[in-house]
Amino acid sequence: MSSVIRQDLSTKDWTIFSEKRGERPYCFEKKKTEKTLKRYEPDCPFCAGNEEQTPEPLLVINGGKNWTVRVVKNKFPAVQSMEAFEEGPFEEPHSEGPYLSIDGIGEHEVIIESPWHDDNIIKMDIGHVEKIIKAYRKRFIDVSSQFKNQLVIIFKNHGTRAGASLEHPHSQLVAIPFVPEYIRNKIIESRKYFQEQGRCVYCDIIKHEIKADKRVICENQGFAALAPYASSVPYNIIIYPKKHMACFAEIDDRGISGLAGILQEVLGRLYALLDDPDYNFVIDNSTMDQCGSSYYHWHLEIMPRLNTRAGFEIGSGMNINHIMPETCADRLRKIEYLPKKRGGYEKDQNNIY
Amino acid sequence: MSSVIRQDLSTKDWTIFSEKRGERPYCFEKKKTEKTLKRYEPDCPFCAGNEEQTPEPLLVINGGKNWTVRVVKNKFPAVQSMEAFEEGPFEEPHSEGPYLSIDGIGEHEVIIESPWHDDNIIKMDIGHVEKIIKAYRKRFIDVSSQFKNQLVIIFKNHGTRAGASLEHPHSQLVAIPFVPEYIRNKIIESRKYFQEQGRCVYCDIIKHEIKADKRVICENQGFAALAPYASSVPYNIIIYPKKHMACFAEIDDRGISGLAGILQEVLGRLYALLDDPDYNFVIDNSTMDQCGSSYYHWHLEIMPRLNTRAGFEIGSGMNINHIMPETCADRLRKIEYLPKKRGGYEKDQNNIY
Repeated sequence: MSSVIRQDLSTKDWTIFSEKRGERPYCFEKKKTEKTLKRYEPDCPFCAGNEEQTPEPLLVINGGKNWTVRVVKNKFPAVQSMEAFEEGPFEEPHSEGPYLSIDGIGEHEVIIESPWHDDNIIKMDIGHVEKIIKAYRKRFIDVSSQFKNQLVIIFKNHGTRAGASLEHPHSQLVAIPFVPEYIRNKIIESRKYFQEQGRCVYCDIIKHEIKADKRVICENQGFAALAPYASSVPYNIIIYPKKHMACFAEIDDRGISGLAGILQEVLGRLYALLDDPDYNFVIDNSTMDQCGSSYYHWHLEIMPRLNTRAGFEIGSGMNINHIMPETCADRLRKIEYLPKKRGGYEKDQNNIY
Repeated sequence: MSSVIRQDLSTKDWTIFSEKRGERPYCFEKKKTEKTLKRYEPDCPFCAGNEEQTPEPLLVINGGKNWTVRVVKNKFPAVQSMEAFEEGPFEEPHSEGPYLSIDGIGEHEVIIESPWHDDNIIKMDIGHVEKIIKAYRKRFIDVSSQFKNQLVIIFKNHGTRAGASLEHPHSQLVAIPFVPEYIRNKIIESRKYFQEQGRCVYCDIIKHEIKADKRVICENQGFAALAPYASSVPYNIIIYPKKHMACFAEIDDRGISGLAGILQEVLGRLYALLDDPDYNFVIDNSTMDQCGSSYYHWHLEIMPRLNTRAGFEIGSGMNINHIMPETCADRLRKIEYLPKKRGGYEKDQNNIY
């Protein structure tokens, strides 16, 4: 069955149904420490040498024999390209009694971050991290410009508690044909703030945080990493471009270099303090329409998965957090941050291929 | 530190901060099958015989020597009664720069469902399940009528994947001093539907579902258990009172008897089909103000915890579900449902106390 998106009549929220997604292989050994991972796993579809196990790449960075980053279609997609729908693109929503659903049209891609199974953003050469972010930017722009893709989300699931089903370092891109309520609300709130205050709410947050200096984890010329004032989970971190920038698509190469640096540092600090915690990160970008807007301001949010959403959170939509963000920021700032041997693999590269 | 509720400036969402909550003991053996649980655990604060480990009870059902259900204050609360705030009740929100926070005033109670560590709603005498629900009703009404409690949520976390930290069967009640966006949105949507259609949206759902008969799991005279059309997770179930009833506080003893029966059956079917899955359930009740309203309709929602919310869900606020609700309902209907020996413990009761 093709994927379908159904609306809840009472809340107007939508859920994506994809039975295909239930067929995913699960390739995770019992929580291994980084040291015991192998550089190559014969059964891993993302390892260099196993390229025939994935569809034709949509993007290869450092192509030819030695690829660095590779983007392919997800074989177990949540939503599917138009071609997957035999009866052509949907024109009308489907209905059943009082309910509505629409075809699950969109894109679902995998960004394979490295040829090596045991690689990790925290120990890559910084140029490699930049290439991953360049792949994000390229796919983001290409997919956003395609028909019907209203919202494009780029995210990473690291570890089983974060929902990852494959161990090999990868991130994902999902595009869907409408803007869900959660995102629409963020856009509306930022527009309202701008109307009332004449300033971008995110710019105000960044300015206040740098001045208050209680929740700043680290910063570089272009970016600041903060523990948000109302952090929804312990060690929640948001990376903001310091200068106003509505849409991730607007980032230039210099910006990518700054983002790569701060992302590597923040993930390195989390790794050192919390012993390789499972986490998700998401590029929160509203929609392409907001490019150039004065009220939205894209950011990258990291959510370590240390606790469990329980009945209260499900029933109220609110979170309960048991560590203050000031404590989290302080611990992350103080932990000794030793960048792993950057480019440590560089010299072996030619031996493998 | 007392608990505090902070607002996110960009989304206007609130998070409860309670460092006390981080001090909770964690008393879970490695996933045990029901058979290996003991009836009494010396270290369990909820076991009969260990009553001195909990604060004075707020409610005891079947009092005296042989209590059946016991309600106490949570020793590790998310929000706290007014007395806990030395400087008296808050009058004004606190501010820091552009941010707002309010004192975390409210109630957090534990409903101990049974004197026995190894008990479970699915094998209790039906009269015992009714007593649990009577305790819910009594505490719901009492807490709702107290100053500042705007929203009262009753929920159960069963198993570690559902966020439970204690194994002994229990549920919880949390009251907070305002109505969060998630609940407000449900109320607004149901009011809007009523304005447009002249009917309660939940009544329309129940009517359509019983007629369509594709997602009904089971029903009795007063209640129907459905797999929702846009189920957010696999085996999501909602129990609705069939006749319009806005607020849980309005349930009478006959209603409690019907609810006890269908809740036990539905949880029994989940247990049989999915081998004792972890789950949350929540009484979705909007607010006490809505009592008697023609547009809201309380319900009890069960969320089995079989999959993990990952980056896409966090970033978009939408869910991806890989099993259609029709499939879930069909499997739950077909599974052989053998009520456990109801009242099987009844005859031993006098031997223990």
